[in-house]
Amino acid sequence: MRISELAARTGVPLATVKFYLREGLLMPGNATSATQAVYSDEHVRRLGLVRALAVQGLPLHKIKAVVGLVDDPRDDLFAVLGNAIAALPPYVDPPGDGDYPRARRILERLGQVYEPDFAAVAQLEQALAALEAAGLEMSDRRIDVYGRHIRDIAALDLELLPTASRRATVEAAVLGTALYEPVLTAMRRLAHQHLAARLFAGDGDTSDPIVQEPQ
Amino acid sequence: MRISELAARTGVPLATVKFYLREGLLMPGNATSATQAVYSDEHVRRLGLVRALAVQGLPLHKIKAVVGLVDDPRDDLFAVLGNAIAALPPYVDPPGDGDYPRARRILERLGQVYEPDFAAVAQLEQALAALEAAGLEMSDRRIDVYGRHIRDIAALDLELLPTASRRATVEAAVLGTALYEPVLTAMRRLAHQHLAARLFAGDGDTSDPIVQEPQ
Repeated sequence: MRISELAARTGVPLATVKFYLREGLLMPGNATSATQAVYSDEHVRRLGLVRALAVQGLPLHKIKAVVGLVDDPRDDLFAVLGNAIAALPPYVDPPGDGDYPRARRILERLGQVYEPDFAAVAQLEQALAALEAAGLEMSDRRIDVYGRHIRDIAALDLELLPTASRRATVEAAVLGTALYEPVLTAMRRLAHQHLAARLFAGDGDTSDPIVQEPQ
Repeated sequence: MRISELAARTGVPLATVKFYLREGLLMPGNATSATQAVYSDEHVRRLGLVRALAVQGLPLHKIKAVVGLVDDPRDDLFAVLGNAIAALPPYVDPPGDGDYPRARRILERLGQVYEPDFAAVAQLEQALAALEAAGLEMSDRRIDVYGRHIRDIAALDLELLPTASRRATVEAAVLGTALYEPVLTAMRRLAHQHLAARLFAGDGDTSDPIVQEPQ
């Protein structure tokens, strides 16, 4: 397809498509003359990824970092995942002493390795510090239940990764880290509303709602 | 405590504390003279909440909306949860036709009510459209597994809400929606790395990694 059709099919303005091409976020099309090129479904998908990351608020250089991991998966999946996570928000400054005591407590309780160099360890520490500052706690029970369910979700994610080629595996792992997170967040919010509707709907005058274990 | 101690204890610069007071994000202290007031642990927690929301990238008027829900919980938990979710990112423009077919498919499959007025329905639709645009899919198996685990996480969240008063319930529900999300996101990323390390570490030369069901 021509560049104008690529823009029309993806809903991305033509000027933005050209900007992404110049910036290297979108790979060049197949040149058919000195001034024309054709684009494929691969370009459609890439535009989808770049737009999705932009909507999540990633700055241009971070989108470039994610796209670079997909295009040049030199390392094994483990290393690529680590780099992808570091390129995604939230962006956390490392602490002076290099230690993350709140994250360490949770990982040790879950039997997972505590590796302070993982970007997600710093991200977890920041999230836990924010909870604490607002007067909420991360009880052992919550750690255990969250940990068990999140582990099962993550295991499915890995199981469903395509294995046709290393490139396909890495691409799906990087995209999946970024793009399934907002799905899970929205699903949890809807599950809260679904359960709250059953527990609380119509009891607007009750001052002490009884919270029951849902069936 | 005096305002200077409040700033020191929370690590929030004094000028920022005064700004939050002027903007109504922080409730006034107890006046002890015409020019002095004392502040309590409630102010410490409120500053923690405001900072946590600011770090998540909420603009000032959205932070005000969340704080307003906590301070004035007139509605039942169900209504307050809906308003809190609408005040939290991602901010999604409603579609012209008011329909969210991708979100509807998932909610119907999970046996949850499809209510297009819920902000999280629009958020889920946007997340699913982003997946689709990047060439990833939301298979029935993924819906079922995500749905089951997310439902159990949400049920625990509701079970652990304090019930001492409606105000305490609402405050914890609003804070919990905003503040446990980054914890869960970081935990999923760490679970991916934990599982990937076991599956892939040391096989950097294998072009076709075998993904196994983790124990």
